[in-house]
Amino acid sequence: MSARRETPAELAGRVRAGETRALARAISLVEDGAPEAEELVRLLFPATGRAHVVGFTGSPGVGKSTLVSALVGLARSEGLSAGVISVDPTSPFTRGALLGDRIRLSEHFLDPGVFIRSMGTRGHAGGLAEATLQAALVLDASGKDVVFLETVGAGQNEVGILSIADTVVLVLMPGSGDSVQALKAGIMEIPDLVAINKRDHPLAAATRADIRQTLALGGGEPPPIVLTEAIRGDGVEDLWRAIAEHRARLEPGGKLAERRARNLAAEVYAVAAARARRHLENAVQDDPELTRLLDEVRRRALDPLSAVHEILRKVFHIDDEDDSDAH
Amino acid sequence: MSARRETPAELAGRVRAGETRALARAISLVEDGAPEAEELVRLLFPATGRAHVVGFTGSPGVGKSTLVSALVGLARSEGLSAGVISVDPTSPFTRGALLGDRIRLSEHFLDPGVFIRSMGTRGHAGGLAEATLQAALVLDASGKDVVFLETVGAGQNEVGILSIADTVVLVLMPGSGDSVQALKAGIMEIPDLVAINKRDHPLAAATRADIRQTLALGGGEPPPIVLTEAIRGDGVEDLWRAIAEHRARLEPGGKLAERRARNLAAEVYAVAAARARRHLENAVQDDPELTRLLDEVRRRALDPLSAVHEILRKVFHIDDEDDSDAH
Repeated sequence: MSARRETPAELAGRVRAGETRALARAISLVEDGAPEAEELVRLLFPATGRAHVVGFTGSPGVGKSTLVSALVGLARSEGLSAGVISVDPTSPFTRGALLGDRIRLSEHFLDPGVFIRSMGTRGHAGGLAEATLQAALVLDASGKDVVFLETVGAGQNEVGILSIADTVVLVLMPGSGDSVQALKAGIMEIPDLVAINKRDHPLAAATRADIRQTLALGGGEPPPIVLTEAIRGDGVEDLWRAIAEHRARLEPGGKLAERRARNLAAEVYAVAAARARRHLENAVQDDPELTRLLDEVRRRALDPLSAVHEILRKVFHIDDEDDSDAH
Repeated sequence: MSARRETPAELAGRVRAGETRALARAISLVEDGAPEAEELVRLLFPATGRAHVVGFTGSPGVGKSTLVSALVGLARSEGLSAGVISVDPTSPFTRGALLGDRIRLSEHFLDPGVFIRSMGTRGHAGGLAEATLQAALVLDASGKDVVFLETVGAGQNEVGILSIADTVVLVLMPGSGDSVQALKAGIMEIPDLVAINKRDHPLAAATRADIRQTLALGGGEPPPIVLTEAIRGDGVEDLWRAIAEHRARLEPGGKLAERRARNLAAEVYAVAAARARRHLENAVQDDPELTRLLDEVRRRALDPLSAVHEILRKVFHIDDEDDSDAH
């Protein structure tokens, strides 16, 4: 009961002191998109920037959660505390399969040095990007040494989710042909590290050769590739070392600070754009005149781009013709 | 020379008369993001709504272009004219591989009943969504019976590109494990039809069984699955028939009109949101005060969400706190 009356400042104090219960409450506020969450993060922000934020992306079923769970174990064995945020885009059916995967992480549920939360798509005018950013900042401010972010992705939808990460790991498995093709075609961003999980698979070596060749085409130093078998823990120490080495390579010459500055700016853009879009949709729904514009488009009485101009003028008070030349 | 002085109204007239040269010029205007393109589309819009717009999505390398090329051949053999727009998201390297794939389409280059254009990411404040929408409308107004849209995707990035389509075909190949997993996890939208290309592959039957099982979980009538071997043309007639049947199923009871109304509204939102984002980025770059906000975030003196609020207030004159409760 009393917890409900706690002010954001009080909660922030307890989060910074590393109290697990305060952390749980703070992340819940963030996850629910509660108004207090923003003030809380505002208060905590100056205390952030200490944690190593490691992002994991890859198709469903490649073993990301198992891998993260094993890495959490290694971090703990070195005396480091860890936070995990599993970001779960909409999954209308077979939600159970994903949750089943997450069960791997439950071995750490009783460890007070580990905080784990799955995030769905509810709430948040700024969408998952905003919720993930806030949760990562809260974990960072609470003193967690490593923050693992995990999301399902194919190189594009995790924009804004993983853009806060210091190190991005792409997890593949033998037979991840689509992802390899996407890397080849340049529609997937080059990660900092590649983990090929399920290395006992007969196609593992071929997949590694294929990936290595693909990454070599990108120019510059290609990202390291690590073979793992997360369930048994094989290769996980190599991956953990590669993650630490990536951060170590960033430290000198202010490269880490530079990357973080870029990351934060990208987050601001992603969250602002998501909020602008939400505002636009709400405005059109609430305004009979704008709804009428959409009706006219549907009747082919008004063309879509004229409707766009009209909507942007009314909702954002901008004359977007000015931007047309700006490419 | 004289073509340069042609007014949009004159060009629109020639497009509607089905002149190939006018069509080429119109699509070039659209592709370059030329200011006249908007007026042109405005003039052509009332003449649209006749073509069957069929969208194709799938990972790079599954054979989308080969399949589309074979379908164009079938359409032509029935006396139908066809337009093809291949949408190519950024591909920094191995661009050649994609172009190589597109070469399949070149067999139709000399046929005046077929118009083919590849679209990149240049120009357009509204991005590829806007360019594709405009190009599809131009082809529709020019009298093309079928308009094929083709884009590389994993179920999310083609939003706004394929949302104009009456029929969406997901192209997979045996070994497209990532796409099947993405369907299962619900992060890829359920298409109207699935084509499994390269059906001679030993894993083709297993892939079909896997897809069938996955789609059955979605509830409702699962989309038809067609096995093809595009290079030899095997199964392409079945796919063509399935595409026609999908449209025929939409016709009665105004379902097609309903879907198109929804599609057009989705396009308006996608284009408006893309333009709003572009405007936001330009505004921040051009305004020293907003750039300073980003700097403060980088120095952790100002938290990211406060910066977002400030930017939205200044750029769009909105107080986005109002939206926070609207979820």
